[in-house]
Amino acid sequence: MKAALGAYFDAMNAGDTAKLKSMFSDDAMIEDPFGTPLRTSNAFFDRLATVKLNFKILAVTAPAMPTAAAAVNLTTPHGTLTVIELFTFKPEGNISSLKAYWGSDDRKQ
Amino acid sequence: MKAALGAYFDAMNAGDTAKLKSMFSDDAMIEDPFGTPLRTSNAFFDRLATVKLNFKILAVTAPAMPTAAAAVNLTTPHGTLTVIELFTFKPEGNISSLKAYWGSDDRKQ
Repeated sequence: MKAALGAYFDAMNAGDTAKLKSMFSDDAMIEDPFGTPLRTSNAFFDRLATVKLNFKILAVTAPAMPTAAAAVNLTTPHGTLTVIELFTFKPEGNISSLKAYWGSDDRKQ
Repeated sequence: MKAALGAYFDAMNAGDTAKLKSMFSDDAMIEDPFGTPLRTSNAFFDRLATVKLNFKILAVTAPAMPTAAAAVNLTTPHGTLTVIELFTFKPEGNISSLKAYWGSDDRKQ
């Protein structure tokens, strides 16, 4: 699971939309930020495809359950942001859900 | 919410069981680690009261929802551990749930 998170953030930093989509199950849903409407992973990564993002991992943990969590510093064209993300996995190993915990207060200029 | 998390980890580091209990709602439940049975916050902190713990905050984020997340390094008498924790809050401001995401793989000797 930790290896999958490493691969996920590598693909994010490379802007590799096809790879990102392939890492998620067909029915995967993304809630980013937490508290906003769910989007399908395909819609989410299509929307991100034109934005240059850089993720730096601060911490990754993997409970015994099919889940993992990461704290990251995200640099966007508009500034940097601290985000904590929760991932769940299908038995086959692809990601079935992603919830990103951050708020406007977590932005730094 | 971020201030509440700072106060929570300060009370953890001080071993202040009474303060910790007072920060949680009467019906608060704790799942630590995620995937194990829920415990009441009172039972959880009674059990921790004899263990010397030190938390160092790596990252804290606060979505617009009544929730917050933290990544911490935890030092125990048995070693160190990276943990990601999710908190939810009552409208009155006390903590209503805590889920701690970590696994045996997140221990360092």
